[in-house]
Amino acid sequence: MTEDNILNRINSPSDLKKLSTDELYELSDEIREEIMTVVSNNGGHLASNLGVVELTVAIHSVFNTPKDKIVWDVGHQSYTHKILTGRLDELKTIRTENGLSGFPKRNESEYDCFDTGHSSTSVSAAFGISCAGTIINDKYYTIAVIGDGALSGGLALEALNSAGKSKENLIVILNDNKMSISKNVGSMAKHLTKIRIQPSYLDAKSRVHKHLKKIPGIGQGLARGMSRLKNWIRINFFGHQKNMFEQLGFKYYGPLDGHDIDQLRTAMRAAKRSRGPVMLHVCTKKGKGYEYAEKNPNVFHGISAFDIETGEPKSSSLGYSDVFGEYMCERARTDKKLCAITAAMAMGTGLSEFAKKYKTRFFDVGIAEEHAVTFACGLAAGNATPVFAVYSTFLQRSYDQILHDASLQNLHIVLAIDRAGIVGEDGETHQGIFDTAFLNTIPGITVFAPSSFHELDTMLDTAIYRTKGVVAVRYPRGGELYIPEDYKYDGEDYTFYGNKFADTVIVTYGRVFSFACEAVRKLNSEGTNVSVLKLNKIKPLPESAVQKISGCRNCFFFEEGIESGGIGQSFGLMLYENGFEGQFRLNAIKDYVHQAKVNSALHRLGLDADGIYDIVTDSLKK
Amino acid sequence: MTEDNILNRINSPSDLKKLSTDELYELSDEIREEIMTVVSNNGGHLASNLGVVELTVAIHSVFNTPKDKIVWDVGHQSYTHKILTGRLDELKTIRTENGLSGFPKRNESEYDCFDTGHSSTSVSAAFGISCAGTIINDKYYTIAVIGDGALSGGLALEALNSAGKSKENLIVILNDNKMSISKNVGSMAKHLTKIRIQPSYLDAKSRVHKHLKKIPGIGQGLARGMSRLKNWIRINFFGHQKNMFEQLGFKYYGPLDGHDIDQLRTAMRAAKRSRGPVMLHVCTKKGKGYEYAEKNPNVFHGISAFDIETGEPKSSSLGYSDVFGEYMCERARTDKKLCAITAAMAMGTGLSEFAKKYKTRFFDVGIAEEHAVTFACGLAAGNATPVFAVYSTFLQRSYDQILHDASLQNLHIVLAIDRAGIVGEDGETHQGIFDTAFLNTIPGITVFAPSSFHELDTMLDTAIYRTKGVVAVRYPRGGELYIPEDYKYDGEDYTFYGNKFADTVIVTYGRVFSFACEAVRKLNSEGTNVSVLKLNKIKPLPESAVQKISGCRNCFFFEEGIESGGIGQSFGLMLYENGFEGQFRLNAIKDYVHQAKVNSALHRLGLDADGIYDIVTDSLKK
Repeated sequence: MTEDNILNRINSPSDLKKLSTDELYELSDEIREEIMTVVSNNGGHLASNLGVVELTVAIHSVFNTPKDKIVWDVGHQSYTHKILTGRLDELKTIRTENGLSGFPKRNESEYDCFDTGHSSTSVSAAFGISCAGTIINDKYYTIAVIGDGALSGGLALEALNSAGKSKENLIVILNDNKMSISKNVGSMAKHLTKIRIQPSYLDAKSRVHKHLKKIPGIGQGLARGMSRLKNWIRINFFGHQKNMFEQLGFKYYGPLDGHDIDQLRTAMRAAKRSRGPVMLHVCTKKGKGYEYAEKNPNVFHGISAFDIETGEPKSSSLGYSDVFGEYMCERARTDKKLCAITAAMAMGTGLSEFAKKYKTRFFDVGIAEEHAVTFACGLAAGNATPVFAVYSTFLQRSYDQILHDASLQNLHIVLAIDRAGIVGEDGETHQGIFDTAFLNTIPGITVFAPSSFHELDTMLDTAIYRTKGVVAVRYPRGGELYIPEDYKYDGEDYTFYGNKFADTVIVTYGRVFSFACEAVRKLNSEGTNVSVLKLNKIKPLPESAVQKISGCRNCFFFEEGIESGGIGQSFGLMLYENGFEGQFRLNAIKDYVHQAKVNSALHRLGLDADGIYDIVTDSLKK
Repeated sequence: MTEDNILNRINSPSDLKKLSTDELYELSDEIREEIMTVVSNNGGHLASNLGVVELTVAIHSVFNTPKDKIVWDVGHQSYTHKILTGRLDELKTIRTENGLSGFPKRNESEYDCFDTGHSSTSVSAAFGISCAGTIINDKYYTIAVIGDGALSGGLALEALNSAGKSKENLIVILNDNKMSISKNVGSMAKHLTKIRIQPSYLDAKSRVHKHLKKIPGIGQGLARGMSRLKNWIRINFFGHQKNMFEQLGFKYYGPLDGHDIDQLRTAMRAAKRSRGPVMLHVCTKKGKGYEYAEKNPNVFHGISAFDIETGEPKSSSLGYSDVFGEYMCERARTDKKLCAITAAMAMGTGLSEFAKKYKTRFFDVGIAEEHAVTFACGLAAGNATPVFAVYSTFLQRSYDQILHDASLQNLHIVLAIDRAGIVGEDGETHQGIFDTAFLNTIPGITVFAPSSFHELDTMLDTAIYRTKGVVAVRYPRGGELYIPEDYKYDGEDYTFYGNKFADTVIVTYGRVFSFACEAVRKLNSEGTNVSVLKLNKIKPLPESAVQKISGCRNCFFFEEGIESGGIGQSFGLMLYENGFEGQFRLNAIKDYVHQAKVNSALHRLGLDADGIYDIVTDSLKK
């Protein structure tokens, strides 16, 4: 980047106010270049960020942050916001350990007024912030920026319903890119399409309107003329056809061209002058400005480092999600009752192929994890066999539905929990470290934890065909790790590896088993006799396994999940209740886990091979 | 009831098909009488059941259950359904131990195709059941009956979005009684009102239409004529003004008079002939046919036994909810930042008075527990002080929001958890036994458990004014129980009661403390030296308390909450980790708890004074 560019002169959003429209466009180009460079190196959310450059520039040029509050739904589209609010120099650290977060963080900047990460929270939060301003008599504007995909989330819909009738001057900017992470689904998306093709009600003398007039072709012009006449009659005699947002009580401006800064600014100023809740419907292009991302926005949604020239990822390898997807396709060929459900994550969960091959048994319900589970319960009640593939962190949304709609009725639904455990660079909001603990509270549920692709296949089979009620199979992000050649999974609820008569036992499950084996190899080579009890089924806990080790002297439990209320605590107490008189040491996760590469995070947590080795060695010395 | 009535001739829904319309009305009257009698004796949901008598009769006369499937949202309005499906004789046992459930239960009848209890699940479940029929090629109709209040729940909105675009012939009956449990709120309710006053599009020659024509007053008639003309023009030239449900992809019939059986049947037959999802918008009167209930439907929503003649409850006494409500009003007088939030439970949570007195700081967000928490986070981020009063069982819906929006950001919100522990006759879906365990998994949260009204006041003060981050105060349904005169709460995290040097310690919290004291009195009088460690703060656990008792010989933990992942397990393990070498016995709840009076359920669970006494005595004998 050259030194005389505009971006280098922006120290805070207030500097935007001095720029001409042309300069704002130039600035947008510079920002786009920055984002491209950083994401191609660090990985991150590309398409969504490229889509909102002009929108973010427009917001910051019209509103007065940090006094005015912007809540970014999901938050992975906040890179331009970060660049404009004094974080340009740090941008290269984004999503790295101790670097900038890929999401808004209150403790990172006063311009980040609300932390996000999960979808569909922005309208609730912004409405709350707006009401608080009224209550404590602090006058500011509150803006929620929410994508069309996030609108399928019940939380956002609850919030629109709740806010729509209020008198708060809440401004909701609907960033409509015709996408959630996958192609957007559901009738709301269809409704948006309908609105999009109607002429805009906003009388803005913007470049887009001028541009539209130049479109050649009399037929098209005539059609537009007729449509306008009809619209004029409708509006003047009957009131115009209200869209859903208007029916929910919002004043509606749109559809707006999300890459036309003047048009956006005009609409935002109108929104500021309004009373009551306002919605600006802004159409943007995901991946705008980068050909590969425009063509394949879902590939470039959240990606690893890639080559800008070719658009190809720098590395790729077979992961658990792929193995899951292959398993499902293979089984669905003969099992005609097998259904797959995703909450807008067909690609991430490995279900793209299934979606193509088995259309009538594939259900993308949108970003709607609550509905996904209760819908699965309905399928099960009707004798189909539903498998809901979902990231661990997003399953948190479905706690009540698993507890109450699924498990209480003992309906046979299968939860394929992807991204279980540490996920890395997305940080606190995306770690899959709570599912073990919250599933542990649910009566009657069965949870399996594979440590290899082979185990994933076998456990899915057991879950789908040989277990009743609610069954979960949880597996990590990424691929297979080290498994000793002499280890064999026999399909039992637990497996011992190493010397059965060792006085010291390491208990663990899932991915950490690999690290435990590495640590044990080293410990054994040094003459410390240690065996591993690997739990294949972590709920209900196999009491016979506990009994078998109750006579040992030292028991170490390593858990890639939250400690409080987790599997390790239940196991430890069960051990003591079975007469154990030795030393039990639990090393699980005590708090939210910051962003870092998976290996680095596991190392910090003492859950990698070194950590296990150190903890065991230190304890045995005492 | 006389023997020659119609109801006695109804053995299954198919018998309805032989009856004339007049007979169906007579039948409805008889059903109403049955419901009145039973609910006035047993308590239960009165107003909602009286409102749907004709609707239920119409459904069962048009559809062929159990082949066709009806999913009752929430399910407390299913009494008529139970009466018509062979459960008339058992109705008098409803909501009693081993009697009929007050909600649909699959294990109670083949006519109950899906268990409900929490709001807003029906459309998801019914859509799933419908899709399953398509997948396994089993042809039946699926009907979801959902109230207007339940429509404010995000789960229902997610489901409408997901189902609206499908080709399934799903039939959603919107039972619009202008109410959720409290008066319905939000813009959806406003939208429904608008629809309701439009002329019906259904060309049914029903008695209501005939009746309408008789309404005197030329002005009114003229207005209606004009409206019809305008409507005719609109429909013929512009397509009619689509309501929200049509925009979501549903074919819409309505508004229909929910007490006009002919009109309902005509519409249902039309729905059967339709393709794709259909919504029947049915207007009913909550409490229909019982004057007191019609006037005060929220009082008669869920009630205890009452006197039919006067409408007065047979008993009433001061409860924790009242004390909470008084506290809030008192504090709000001087603390201008204090806000109260309810999810459609102003009355149940004791906030009616607050709602009247502090309108601008009272937020009824509708049945929307997810939004309630994230909205509270927004209020907190804007420096107001939100208290969300909610039943324990419904807070299950907010797990992700507490974890991710509130606790991760360390925002100061207060959860006033009412109905914590066993609630009694509503059974499995309403017991407040999971909050302890799922809150136990959340880092940084603080949970208090008062055992008396005085403690509730003090702990609310501590929670609101002297604790940071997310704080919960959990208290049971009903009123205060026995507290020994020589017991004094000193505001500390835990309190010892009885002989500090006893070798046997009972640990407990909340309501069970009263029973423990009773048991200890008896034990001590018999010469068994037992003390009680009462936990006032159950999360984080006070380690100093654990250390103090780590030298004792016997420790009994009694917990009115789920065992797995709960407070007792964490406590037990902590005890052993602090060098405890005695016997630890945990008596907590292992599974869902069936309906029964609170005392009876606690007795069955070994959590009343007798249970505690027996368990301690038996263990010490060994």
